[in-house]
Amino acid sequence: MPVIRVTLIEGYDEAVRDRLLEGYSAVTRTVLEAIPDGITIAIEEVKQSNYRRGNQRKNPKAPPPAPEQIVRDFLGAMERRDLAAAKTMLAADFAMTFPGGASFAKLEELIDWARPRYQRIGKAYERFDTVPGMESAVVYCFGTLEGVWPDGSAFSGIRFIDRFTVRGGLLVDQKVWNDLDAVRR
Amino acid sequence: MPVIRVTLIEGYDEAVRDRLLEGYSAVTRTVLEAIPDGITIAIEEVKQSNYRRGNQRKNPKAPPPAPEQIVRDFLGAMERRDLAAAKTMLAADFAMTFPGGASFAKLEELIDWARPRYQRIGKAYERFDTVPGMESAVVYCFGTLEGVWPDGSAFSGIRFIDRFTVRGGLLVDQKVWNDLDAVRR
Amino acid sequence: MPVIRVTLIEGYDEAVRDRLLEGYSAVTRTVLEAIPDGITIAIEEVKQSNYRRGNQRKNPKAPPPAPEQIVRDFLGAMERRDLAAAKTMLAADFAMTFPGGASFAKLEELIDWARPRYQRIGKAYERFDTVPGMESAVVYCFGTLEGVWPDGSAFSGIRFIDRFTVRGGLLVDQKVWNDLDAVRR
Amino acid sequence: MPVIRVTLIEGYDEAVRDRLLEGYSAVTRTVLEAIPDGITIAIEEVKQSNYRRGNQRKNPKAPPPAPEQIVRDFLGAMERRDLAAAKTMLAADFAMTFPGGASFAKLEELIDWARPRYQRIGKAYERFDTVPGMESAVVYCFGTLEGVWPDGSAFSGIRFIDRFTVRGGLLVDQKVWNDLDAVRR
Amino acid sequence: MPVIRVTLIEGYDEAVRDRLLEGYSAVTRTVLEAIPDGITIAIEEVKQSNYRRGNQRKNPKAPPPAPEQIVRDFLGAMERRDLAAAKTMLAADFAMTFPGGASFAKLEELIDWARPRYQRIGKAYERFDTVPGMESAVVYCFGTLEGVWPDGSAFSGIRFIDRFTVRGGLLVDQKVWNDLDAVRR
Amino acid sequence: MPVIRVTLIEGYDEAVRDRLLEGYSAVTRTVLEAIPDGITIAIEEVKQSNYRRGNQRKNPKAPPPAPEQIVRDFLGAMERRDLAAAKTMLAADFAMTFPGGASFAKLEELIDWARPRYQRIGKAYERFDTVPGMESAVVYCFGTLEGVWPDGSAFSGIRFIDRFTVRGGLLVDQKVWNDLDAVRR
Repeated sequence: MPVIRVTLIEGYDEAVRDRLLEGYSAVTRTVLEAIPDGITIAIEEVKQSNYRRGNQRKNPKAPPPAPEQIVRDFLGAMERRDLAAAKTMLAADFAMTFPGGASFAKLEELIDWARPRYQRIGKAYERFDTVPGMESAVVYCFGTLEGVWPDGSAFSGIRFIDRFTVRGGLLVDQKVWNDLDAVRR
Repeated sequence: MPVIRVTLIEGYDEAVRDRLLEGYSAVTRTVLEAIPDGITIAIEEVKQSNYRRGNQRKNPKAPPPAPEQIVRDFLGAMERRDLAAAKTMLAADFAMTFPGGASFAKLEELIDWARPRYQRIGKAYERFDTVPGMESAVVYCFGTLEGVWPDGSAFSGIRFIDRFTVRGGLLVDQKVWNDLDAVRR
Repeated sequence: MPVIRVTLIEGYDEAVRDRLLEGYSAVTRTVLEAIPDGITIAIEEVKQSNYRRGNQRKNPKAPPPAPEQIVRDFLGAMERRDLAAAKTMLAADFAMTFPGGASFAKLEELIDWARPRYQRIGKAYERFDTVPGMESAVVYCFGTLEGVWPDGSAFSGIRFIDRFTVRGGLLVDQKVWNDLDAVRR
Repeated sequence: MPVIRVTLIEGYDEAVRDRLLEGYSAVTRTVLEAIPDGITIAIEEVKQSNYRRGNQRKNPKAPPPAPEQIVRDFLGAMERRDLAAAKTMLAADFAMTFPGGASFAKLEELIDWARPRYQRIGKAYERFDTVPGMESAVVYCFGTLEGVWPDGSAFSGIRFIDRFTVRGGLLVDQKVWNDLDAVRR
Repeated sequence: MPVIRVTLIEGYDEAVRDRLLEGYSAVTRTVLEAIPDGITIAIEEVKQSNYRRGNQRKNPKAPPPAPEQIVRDFLGAMERRDLAAAKTMLAADFAMTFPGGASFAKLEELIDWARPRYQRIGKAYERFDTVPGMESAVVYCFGTLEGVWPDGSAFSGIRFIDRFTVRGGLLVDQKVWNDLDAVRR
Repeated sequence: MPVIRVTLIEGYDEAVRDRLLEGYSAVTRTVLEAIPDGITIAIEEVKQSNYRRGNQRKNPKAPPPAPEQIVRDFLGAMERRDLAAAKTMLAADFAMTFPGGASFAKLEELIDWARPRYQRIGKAYERFDTVPGMESAVVYCFGTLEGVWPDGSAFSGIRFIDRFTVRGGLLVDQKVWNDLDAVRR
């Protein structure tokens, strides 16, 4: 039955404050199993001129988009094969791992690897999950794949899951598991 | 650069308070991208007799183990084939989904399904991720499988990921993806 | 010497906030006998979008008039025999008790009962007292009656007291004591 | 849906803190008509050495008994005709007003006045109400009188109400209304 | 690593709030030697109508200029020999003490005393220090004197220090030490 | 009429907390000229395990003695010519400036310089003033000197003032002004 009060410098937009409120609510609920109505959270905004740390005013920078949004944007760019857009979302040391343990550092390598595996692929998302973290956030998404096999036949409803590490607004790695091989067998 | 203060009824043990502090820190860091040293969190404990909601004292129940712990306990019980122990951790409507879309409601069904697939299997965990939530928490774990194929040959280093929904201290569902088929192909 | 801080969703009008501040001041003074200047109270208003309970925004409804105001309105309506107006302020199970233990559920019964007792009656109020409560508030008012006896002679300065239970903005009961009989004797 | 936090110097006993919590709850409920579960109150006790007003430590004196308790003690002393005990609870300027407007400054005057009116009288209390206030508190109690008329016959169930002003732990005035005359008529 | 939150009635201008924030920062740093980045301070402004002390609204008066500013204004007036202006800044019991222990109650006495000591004098300030206090503040300033000796020769770079007591926006005393005699010797 | 609440990790001793309370009181009084009784300050101590900055526990180190105490200790050591003790209180870049602008980096230089000026000197302190600061604190002390001139005659009542910069528990500089020359002239 906790009360959580957050002192925040004025200026964060409502979507950002919403994500804070939801995040604190979820953590409290998950850790304490308190009944939802016993979890009260309020953000108390103070003027920038009314806040000091180390006797210095702080000028909060606009936070990056939500990690889930970054991942959605990347997946969208990849699906329409807009590699230029997709690359702007990648950290310098980005790495991918695909089923069977195939690893790539560049998107082009992935494209080459995928070419003999399917002609076209698309994802239907069932759910995105975000794991908040100090160093980086993790975003999971899972759902089903549909597309066209190399022989021109269609497939759909094949389970997949992706795991992304997001740091500073950029993707650090992507790990992929799916049932393509289980189905194709 | 927020300050988060949590008014909590006295009596939660330190591990629980640690999880709250870590959770609020991670949410703040992830949403605001504030520098870590600018994120200050304090729990202010008040005596049970000093707290009222609706003019009634509240008697907080001990929270369940962390979702990650529940999942670890379940996976341990399954690995040593202690189905009795594993079943105590399952919600009445528990459901499992395995590669290829195989679905089971009972652990015994899983065991039957797995029998022709491998003689023995074990998991080496790389990491657990917990997604806090109002309705339920989600725990992901991934790593590699090692074991023995039906023909007696050994395997190891095969990627897997599990996703568990945890509600009220019980597992609601388990979804599994892995590279067994990709490797076996 | 307490400090009381109240986190309130923005939007309550000043009269409502005044009543809160006065009420908390009075409770503190009465319970602790703290010197008045040691009792500090501040309402900290937060935006509706900055408040969550159970991860839900709350949309505070406008509170009903002060219980004292409801009682004053009722007494005024009764004094000018505007029964229609008076009835809108009554709960479905409203009950009245008058000197000698006479009980009525309807205003018309009271009027009938009063007819042989006086031709006309009016109240001069000395003071209203409100007792805050979780289930209902109680309003007392006392002062003197003036009017005309059945024989046409006037009376005045006769002590009375009324006690009203107010719940959800409606009157639940009225209890009346006065000196009419003591004086008439 | 307010949250009320009270910073209090350590050392008040639990009964006093209970009365504060109940009082703030009742005020909040009465003024806002907020749903009870939305009213959260916490007392945060600070060490005496951690509190300053005007750069001076404050040494809170033990508060007097609850006004209701003082009134109950007085009524008990009067009922058993322990005038010595009753007088210790009276302010120097104590005054009483009884039905018909009879006024007394001394308890003995009341006793003389009552002698021809009844041989013996006792009170059965239905309820006590306390009105908190900055200058003084008011305590109401009502119920029924039972006793013996001057002619030796018994009476009971006769309605009464008393109103006491309590200041600094002493009774400042008592006002009495009852149906003795209405019934005796 | 403290967090300091200040509940302040709305209406103080930013320069005043800045001085509070700087003052609290400096006290915290000096007493705790906490690392600067661990010192977080926020002023939470509340509407005048949302604040009560002793159940009364408080109408904060505009504070006087900073003590340092008062001293600077006085020193400026004295340097340009505007005694009328300088006198408006003096408390009724103002007193001055100069090197050798010379004491004056009136500015004219100082002027007379100084006449044979130098033809003209000016101050170059190195630094002002303010000592906050409950009864009065103290302002120190030090630096060097330059001017003209009685014989017409110039001097400069002679060390001085002044100490002023400031109370209620007025100067209560001035104490002066300098090296004029050490140099002239 | 501010309320100041300080969230502090448990473990600072009472003298340290006293200095914080006094310092915040003095700053508030000096900046706002609020009436003293309107300045309320409370330190709310939280367990070390209940505090996080950047998701890390903080282990507050014991703060150094008050700057005034460090200066008193140094002056005491110098007065009894305990140079070894005095040196332990000096920063590596310590510097002194004496009347006439004489500057020294070592205590022995001061002793040499003073030898022809007086046989013995002692200080009677009228008052110490501490100026809190982010980088360093400043301590002023003033009063009168008494001692013995080189010719064996005694002196007393000669005004002096010292100014010390204190950083990290060590003295960074000492500036001295006095009337020795004014008197000796």
